[in-house]
Amino acid sequence: MIKAGIIGGTGYAGQELVRLLLDHPDVDICFISSSSNHGIHYSQLFMNYFNRMNIECIETPANIADQNIDVLFIALPHGHSSSMLTKEILEKMKVIDLGADFRLTNVDMYNHWYKSNHPNPDLIDSAVYGLCELNREAIRKTNLIANPGCYTTCGILSLAPLIISSLIDPDSIVIDAKSGITGAGRALSLSTHYTECNENMNSYSPIGHRHTPEIEQMLSLLAGQDIKLSFVPHLIPVNRGILSTVYCKPNQPINYEQIREAFVQLYGNDKFIRLLPKGISAETKWVKGSNYMDIGIFLDERTNRIIITSALDNLIKGAAGQAVQNMNIMFGLKEETGLDRISMFPI
Amino acid sequence: MIKAGIIGGTGYAGQELVRLLLDHPDVDICFISSSSNHGIHYSQLFMNYFNRMNIECIETPANIADQNIDVLFIALPHGHSSSMLTKEILEKMKVIDLGADFRLTNVDMYNHWYKSNHPNPDLIDSAVYGLCELNREAIRKTNLIANPGCYTTCGILSLAPLIISSLIDPDSIVIDAKSGITGAGRALSLSTHYTECNENMNSYSPIGHRHTPEIEQMLSLLAGQDIKLSFVPHLIPVNRGILSTVYCKPNQPINYEQIREAFVQLYGNDKFIRLLPKGISAETKWVKGSNYMDIGIFLDERTNRIIITSALDNLIKGAAGQAVQNMNIMFGLKEETGLDRISMFPI
Amino acid sequence: MIKAGIIGGTGYAGQELVRLLLDHPDVDICFISSSSNHGIHYSQLFMNYFNRMNIECIETPANIADQNIDVLFIALPHGHSSSMLTKEILEKMKVIDLGADFRLTNVDMYNHWYKSNHPNPDLIDSAVYGLCELNREAIRKTNLIANPGCYTTCGILSLAPLIISSLIDPDSIVIDAKSGITGAGRALSLSTHYTECNENMNSYSPIGHRHTPEIEQMLSLLAGQDIKLSFVPHLIPVNRGILSTVYCKPNQPINYEQIREAFVQLYGNDKFIRLLPKGISAETKWVKGSNYMDIGIFLDERTNRIIITSALDNLIKGAAGQAVQNMNIMFGLKEETGLDRISMFPI
Amino acid sequence: MIKAGIIGGTGYAGQELVRLLLDHPDVDICFISSSSNHGIHYSQLFMNYFNRMNIECIETPANIADQNIDVLFIALPHGHSSSMLTKEILEKMKVIDLGADFRLTNVDMYNHWYKSNHPNPDLIDSAVYGLCELNREAIRKTNLIANPGCYTTCGILSLAPLIISSLIDPDSIVIDAKSGITGAGRALSLSTHYTECNENMNSYSPIGHRHTPEIEQMLSLLAGQDIKLSFVPHLIPVNRGILSTVYCKPNQPINYEQIREAFVQLYGNDKFIRLLPKGISAETKWVKGSNYMDIGIFLDERTNRIIITSALDNLIKGAAGQAVQNMNIMFGLKEETGLDRISMFPI
Repeated sequence: MIKAGIIGGTGYAGQELVRLLLDHPDVDICFISSSSNHGIHYSQLFMNYFNRMNIECIETPANIADQNIDVLFIALPHGHSSSMLTKEILEKMKVIDLGADFRLTNVDMYNHWYKSNHPNPDLIDSAVYGLCELNREAIRKTNLIANPGCYTTCGILSLAPLIISSLIDPDSIVIDAKSGITGAGRALSLSTHYTECNENMNSYSPIGHRHTPEIEQMLSLLAGQDIKLSFVPHLIPVNRGILSTVYCKPNQPINYEQIREAFVQLYGNDKFIRLLPKGISAETKWVKGSNYMDIGIFLDERTNRIIITSALDNLIKGAAGQAVQNMNIMFGLKEETGLDRISMFPI
Repeated sequence: MIKAGIIGGTGYAGQELVRLLLDHPDVDICFISSSSNHGIHYSQLFMNYFNRMNIECIETPANIADQNIDVLFIALPHGHSSSMLTKEILEKMKVIDLGADFRLTNVDMYNHWYKSNHPNPDLIDSAVYGLCELNREAIRKTNLIANPGCYTTCGILSLAPLIISSLIDPDSIVIDAKSGITGAGRALSLSTHYTECNENMNSYSPIGHRHTPEIEQMLSLLAGQDIKLSFVPHLIPVNRGILSTVYCKPNQPINYEQIREAFVQLYGNDKFIRLLPKGISAETKWVKGSNYMDIGIFLDERTNRIIITSALDNLIKGAAGQAVQNMNIMFGLKEETGLDRISMFPI
Repeated sequence: MIKAGIIGGTGYAGQELVRLLLDHPDVDICFISSSSNHGIHYSQLFMNYFNRMNIECIETPANIADQNIDVLFIALPHGHSSSMLTKEILEKMKVIDLGADFRLTNVDMYNHWYKSNHPNPDLIDSAVYGLCELNREAIRKTNLIANPGCYTTCGILSLAPLIISSLIDPDSIVIDAKSGITGAGRALSLSTHYTECNENMNSYSPIGHRHTPEIEQMLSLLAGQDIKLSFVPHLIPVNRGILSTVYCKPNQPINYEQIREAFVQLYGNDKFIRLLPKGISAETKWVKGSNYMDIGIFLDERTNRIIITSALDNLIKGAAGQAVQNMNIMFGLKEETGLDRISMFPI
Repeated sequence: MIKAGIIGGTGYAGQELVRLLLDHPDVDICFISSSSNHGIHYSQLFMNYFNRMNIECIETPANIADQNIDVLFIALPHGHSSSMLTKEILEKMKVIDLGADFRLTNVDMYNHWYKSNHPNPDLIDSAVYGLCELNREAIRKTNLIANPGCYTTCGILSLAPLIISSLIDPDSIVIDAKSGITGAGRALSLSTHYTECNENMNSYSPIGHRHTPEIEQMLSLLAGQDIKLSFVPHLIPVNRGILSTVYCKPNQPINYEQIREAFVQLYGNDKFIRLLPKGISAETKWVKGSNYMDIGIFLDERTNRIIITSALDNLIKGAAGQAVQNMNIMFGLKEETGLDRISMFPI
């Protein structure tokens, strides 16, 4: 059994991770820390665990390196995981960081977009960007995973095949993303107060959302050239799910089959990427609660525009599920272990 | 492996059953019939199954008795299962009927409340009412289960301990039940059109809902006397879940501990009934997606009234989950096999 | 024109009051105070007012008595309005308090249920309980209105005809109330964080909600005897609306027409109370956005129980609308002035 | 008083129209027809009108020209209004058609996008496209208004200033629109069954939605050149509201102020268009229930892309409100008569 510790287990991503690990056949949860809830039984905070899991939240362990665990998950706001990690810890255990600290490889970029100084830039080079479908080999070998953001997973995977196959004009990309409200986390704010966001739709950060450089970094790497794109997130009154509608222009005469082929080439063997039949759009209801990402592929011949619609569960494939998928790869397990459930419907 | 056939697999209860059986370690699904969707792949109707299950819906098999299956689940509107069942079928396989045909033991009662003549009254005596926590022994021995309704499961289990322990005045019982909209099924109607029921609350059938006699029948049996109660269902704009608030008066001076003891006595060994700590009310979010029923117990000393709040997932413990639980009992499996997931949160 | 001041204008009830007064043909809004938002333009807080109202929030005026206004509305948490009111103020203007400070006539009762000492018990006797349909004459003559709570308006008006006509056993009353989430106000809390209450149902305070004594006080007064009842509020994921399902037992043989007649007697001339046709239940969607309260009347002959379903908009008839209705009565205007809109549908 | 008749008064747009006209100080409603509900009292269908409006739905009048009315509103599916209209009718009354029959000026275009032959192409030239802010003068003089679609109103008004000022590359336009579910009407369908669309997001018709040619026609006219754009509608689980996020590229070096100036030039005197302060995005909650359209203006300098976010109430500014606004213009009333309410919040 893999012995796992979780730091920051009472946010939404952390809690989803606990649920997935509790259900994972090869994992034992050794501890769950929570700065705001230590000393409280986990099942008092989340009564779905009542009568099922008997763990009391602890404070962040003083000496992480001495914890007898195989893997450490960290689900904290940016700035925290890099402050606590050391080379010694990374020698003793594998670390999967669900936060943003190690996602950007360029420390100046981090400092610019996160408006703060990176606490531990020396470790950045040790990290592998844990987008499983694109970085499987590197993930297998590293001890430090930067688990991607929810929007970024959806955006990058929607565009990667088109970029890799050099089918599109990189200057033409727009990602219009819609997220459920768990995407905003469990911390209280007026914008996520029920009666402020229910029955409403809005776009926040039409310019400058922090997931933008993360998407651009990966796509630029795949393209071998600098890519800049517009990414506009929207807040939608549902609990879970991200739907991305991606627009771009082909850089050559092209037909639907050629576009589809690019996706099949890249994802043909990936269990968690489902390419929907021609004419079918992605819907969040078919992926919520699962680790799947569904992709619908369209070519609008009238306007010569490629339109990709894609959907995933922001807390699973967009966070905790991908973290478990990364763990499975790192430990040589089958990639879908503990992640084999389909979406419950209707939820 | 238990070979299972499903008749009526494309309503909400049927689809939930398919999902649970697909996930069940001891079951193979042999066929799924659907009168309205035969010839269509199941994963075209419900794209959560896309790339996961390759079954085409068939028409109801002409000769059910000849199907080589161990258990037959029927999830059809009332009147249909009793029309198609025969003694020959019941000799060859176990049958679990999720519909209403065999729930009422008195055929006149059925004819009165369902405003139609029961198509097959001779079979009624063969059926066992499949409320697992109360009828486990009889379930083990029968070949025909009348799987209880969603409201009735919640109502009966909330009151059974008080009735069995003779603690309450049977004339004082009110069940105020609130249901999510899957409870109304998948057939189109104006009352379940999104924009007619969203952001609305109403009580329908304040008098005369068909689950009333089912609740009264079981409680009367437990009480050894005729019980009549008020049961008022309400339609609430959520997908899943039933919350029941049950009011009754003790028939003797009583304290909280005595009331709680009645629940512990009856449910102390039941995995799927969770008695919440004192002061905690049931919430649907902690049981949705699971087979649990949560029960909160209150004594209002000011008014000398016992108040029980209870919650379950209407499609799981209130339908498909209890059907699987019944199957597990009938086949000698551990009762929680295939039903061990906790609720995902938030959903 | 009536010159109005509003203290506490940025909570949900306060904001609804501003909207209604802005639309009222006989009122000028002179100031809006907000302890947390003074110095900010109202239309920056609530952008529905953008380009329509040019008022900057102020701090609570130091000397209220010196404000040149005719009516003062106060929409603050309990304890605040009584602290700031004086006899001098009441000599100079009419005051309508949307909070709880003057609703209970017995100061010990207040201290017990609100767990604090009433700051200004001397003024309690000056106040009239502003339930318009029951206290119209007293409202006309007073300078201080205790505007009723949302649950209490719904509960009292559902039961008053039965109490006044002495048709029911006062010991049999249960009010099962369901409220939308604006009922919990605009202050942030985990229980009203979107992803915590969306798709959930729960009962909070099954015992001991503070609206209980307010309901009991008024019904006891009408009954001429002490009435104790069970009132259980539930939180439902909709923005607005209260639905109450009221259960009680007749104290004599009775038929539907006699019950209905009691309601017609009391409310026959009331514009804002709509008695629904026989067999029709109240639904919140038909009253939201209006000052109406709809009442459905049922007699369950099987169990000899009267069931009343009633619906109102908690921010209008349950708060700001009733405050305006009180103002209209106090100033001799037609009662429906500024309150004549029907519900928009669907909302 | 203006005497008004309504054909098709029981769909969502029709019902909203009835509500607005009932509230309009200068209008008398003479009749409401409904093919499916004739003979039924309007307030039985929509109980918000209970005790407020005493009108029984009729069948479509046999001889419309003989009805003694000043204005006829038609809210029917496409193909119906053009079948029933004649030159004689248009000589006797003003007609405002909320359907699609007269929106496209090119009959072949209509036949292509609506997949049917236009029933009455001779009348097309008589119609004026009733987008009030752009066609005010022509509206004043015509007897036949083609009231714009909801998506089209939002899309055209978001882009018109940029097109008129020749600031953008017409080949770069993408409209990503999100609609509440009233946009799909009141007719039952699986896609608008509560439990199928609640907690879901999807894009339908990513290619080829019928509002596309309507948007392109108007923008091409304003541009003086043929414009083709991508318009992708999405279905969002809220009752009301459209949020459009519009992307395009400037055709010249430009700054924020120049873009804003184009909007001020065009809409500076329009009461119902609100240009939001710099940095503020449109949100549906601030316009729902009102005739406003809010516009947020952004320039993303990193990607050299203009991003417009705009919001309106699809049943008001996107349908019935604009119909009333057209009527006001046609009859020489102040444009905002009967349309002066701001949004209620929270709804």
